Amino acid sequence: MEKESNFAEWYIEAIDRAGIVDRRYPVKGMNVWMPYGLRLMRLINGFMRDEMARTGHEEVQFPVLVPEDQFQKEADHIKGFGANVYWVTHGGLNPLDVRLLLRPTSEAAMYSLYSLWIRAHTDLPLRLYQIAPVFRYETRQTRTFIRVRELSFFFESHTAHENFDGAEEQIREDLEIWEHLARKYALPALFNKRPDWDKFAGAHYTVGVDAYVAAPGRAMQVASIHQYRDNFARVYDVTFEDRRGERQYAHQTTYGISERVLGAEVAIHGDDRGLILPPEIAPIQVVVIPILAKGAKGRILAEARAFEGEIADKVRTELDVREMRPGAKFYEWERKGVPLRVELGLDEIEGDHVTLVRRDGTRRRKVSRADAPKRIQAMLDRIQRDLYRKAERELREGIHTIDAYGDAPPKGIIRAGWCGKESCGLAMEDKLNRGMLGTPYFGEEFRGRCLECGDATDTVAYAANSY
Amino acid sequence: MEKESNFAEWYIEAIDRAGIVDRRYPVKGMNVWMPYGLRLMRLINGFMRDEMARTGHEEVQFPVLVPEDQFQKEADHIKGFGANVYWVTHGGLNPLDVRLLLRPTSEAAMYSLYSLWIRAHTDLPLRLYQIAPVFRYETRQTRTFIRVRELSFFFESHTAHENFDGAEEQIREDLEIWEHLARKYALPALFNKRPDWDKFAGAHYTVGVDAYVAAPGRAMQVASIHQYRDNFARVYDVTFEDRRGERQYAHQTTYGISERVLGAEVAIHGDDRGLILPPEIAPIQVVVIPILAKGAKGRILAEARAFEGEIADKVRTELDVREMRPGAKFYEWERKGVPLRVELGLDEIEGDHVTLVRRDGTRRRKVSRADAPKRIQAMLDRIQRDLYRKAERELREGIHTIDAYGDAPPKGIIRAGWCGKESCGLAMEDKLNRGMLGTPYFGEEFRGRCLECGDATDTVAYAANSY
Repeated sequence: MEKESNFAEWYIEAIDRAGIVDRRYPVKGMNVWMPYGLRLMRLINGFMRDEMARTGHEEVQFPVLVPEDQFQKEADHIKGFGANVYWVTHGGLNPLDVRLLLRPTSEAAMYSLYSLWIRAHTDLPLRLYQIAPVFRYETRQTRTFIRVRELSFFFESHTAHENFDGAEEQIREDLEIWEHLARKYALPALFNKRPDWDKFAGAHYTVGVDAYVAAPGRAMQVASIHQYRDNFARVYDVTFEDRRGERQYAHQTTYGISERVLGAEVAIHGDDRGLILPPEIAPIQVVVIPILAKGAKGRILAEARAFEGEIADKVRTELDVREMRPGAKFYEWERKGVPLRVELGLDEIEGDHVTLVRRDGTRRRKVSRADAPKRIQAMLDRIQRDLYRKAERELREGIHTIDAYGDAPPKGIIRAGWCGKESCGLAMEDKLNRGMLGTPYFGEEFRGRCLECGDATDTVAYAANSY
Repeated sequence: MEKESNFAEWYIEAIDRAGIVDRRYPVKGMNVWMPYGLRLMRLINGFMRDEMARTGHEEVQFPVLVPEDQFQKEADHIKGFGANVYWVTHGGLNPLDVRLLLRPTSEAAMYSLYSLWIRAHTDLPLRLYQIAPVFRYETRQTRTFIRVRELSFFFESHTAHENFDGAEEQIREDLEIWEHLARKYALPALFNKRPDWDKFAGAHYTVGVDAYVAAPGRAMQVASIHQYRDNFARVYDVTFEDRRGERQYAHQTTYGISERVLGAEVAIHGDDRGLILPPEIAPIQVVVIPILAKGAKGRILAEARAFEGEIADKVRTELDVREMRPGAKFYEWERKGVPLRVELGLDEIEGDHVTLVRRDGTRRRKVSRADAPKRIQAMLDRIQRDLYRKAERELREGIHTIDAYGDAPPKGIIRAGWCGKESCGLAMEDKLNRGMLGTPYFGEEFRGRCLECGDATDTVAYAANSY
């Protein structure tokens, strides 16, 4: 399977061969999480939970079903999602009095409770999150982890604040959280303030967190953050008594991250041999493979077992003692993206060393038996950093700054001046044949002209094809 | 709130006041899990995961929605559940080609995949589990954790074996697993083989794991185990090539545990002051409360902080430094069921001791400051054991062996001879005004007469009102 020449097929094959999900479930766009995939996703989610604990968010879990009347309250919200929700109309043989829908996201489910929980400024900020399934009736072609009908592990945090500035501060913290996650996931990304025509239904503005998949030259939104101002608070009556005793609407934000993160791991780090997992999220960080030789089987197995035992309290390991050719084992663990392989046979025992092979390389290195445990940890750290850096370089090299349409390369991200007018933005989308990712959230030093109208501007915009 | 005199109201109030779930969600029978409740449920589920790891089961996660045609395959299954499922009929504005239902349990979702995964006897036993939401359209009155419309954390393991004996062995292991869990949850229970008229739809037989709630004198099924024989395998075509090269149907079992476990914790261990949580599942095992005195506030706070720091790596603690009267704090942590309270004020500092109060008692005991950390761990172990024993005693004392209908007390579990005939069993249910829990799975030494027909029998049956 060749990643560069046929990315779409490669992507699916890489997932299938790694045993992350089984796509043969009889509803398209809904997948079965296999043990290896579930462990992987749990590690990914674990870092989100760590960040939430660090920043003082608390975890809750809301019901999956939302009554239609709650959902209807936010008209903009419906415009965005109404065509894409699954409707529960019957219980048993009886039509329901109030139809229920499977939440596509949880604003409508949560905010009627927020209006009960929030009474006074002392209840704020309220910062809650959940990691739970959401559902979207996708009519477009589905793609595993990227566009699905059940997002099995949707992270969403929902915060409420005394005022706009409090919500703005939250968004800056959310982006800092991503910077931490990005190191764990080895997924550097751009923070783009989406153009108004592409913001989330009901939001004051939306920030997209865009990673970059070099092979097809496309952006992939892996997270999104929304400043709601008091838009939802007005609809769901989320009010509080402020310090002066006056009733005010709360200002709210949300932060969403889905299993797209896992899609990005596959798409960005994988190679023709399959997945390459960053050690921080790898369910198995090190696989130990005994290379059995005639007459020394017992001795080699005992040695491999002893070695695995020595490292197992520091790293996540697997000892593969199955009756198979070593080559077939190598191939299988490579497909699963295990970052580091240890080979241990007669040569190694006699030479008092072990052989280490990084998944993100091919070089075999002999490391003295005594040093190996420490060296393994250092190598995992190194792999983690190298994967991050490689993705960062690909992202940087994928961005092309242009000042004329003719200079746009066939793929990659375009960076160009934009006067800010919607008409110019839409024209740029059209002529570049790319969607507008938006303008950098933290700004960028720029002096140039709008790619479309030629007016002088100090604003730069990014555009790309996106997943 | 009085547990003995008005159990039903007490139960709901105890849950509300502990902050486990918020019941004000606008769909009846669906609750919002609050941070404290979610931590509690996670600890409960954690022990299930430990047991699964110990016994070599692997975790998976299936989609929530099941296509109607998969569900229809098992006619008995539908008879049992058809009236109680939520139907998804529309995606956006369009009726779906194939209606989907929210799984009430996962047989129909899983077994079409099992038929792909299982090819040969080398693939067996296959032992998978998930902890995920299931949905039941309940028309009867709902009761938090006990009868709900969304079971947010439904544990279900599904195993497949080469033959009936393999499946039987699994069921024995399942019951051993419960014995382990029962110690962690402090929930002793009876293993009753349900009468045929009360077995799970599609099962060859069902074993109910029945705990006992002494206050109302009722049984509560907290887990159930089903021997399917090859009933489902025939419907979902779960076959394998056996050792002789012949195609055989697999034999299957399931094991289900829901958040009823949490309902049982509340109902069995709680008292008039609220919850009493067994230390193993308590999100907060020890609360440290500084008793502030004028002029010594800083010193007391520093001391309380130091003490909490000393024990925090061994037990789950909370230091309550809020500006509130100590009495109000005591009351709040009692409602939440925190097993042990540490009071630390000027008296304690000067006496070089701390004051400890067990939630399941009232006695205040002074313990020397130096010994306290060790003593606290021993006391938590003691509380855990005492709660188990208390529940065990209540269960034992709740069972009344009778040989005439007239001897049946108004509440509690009835134990009586049964000839095994359905007609007699149904008559007993009727005259005892109790449901048949069934016969003890591991048998019991018994010699007597059928309560109904008077025939000699060595089989004993249990009957009770149940939640």
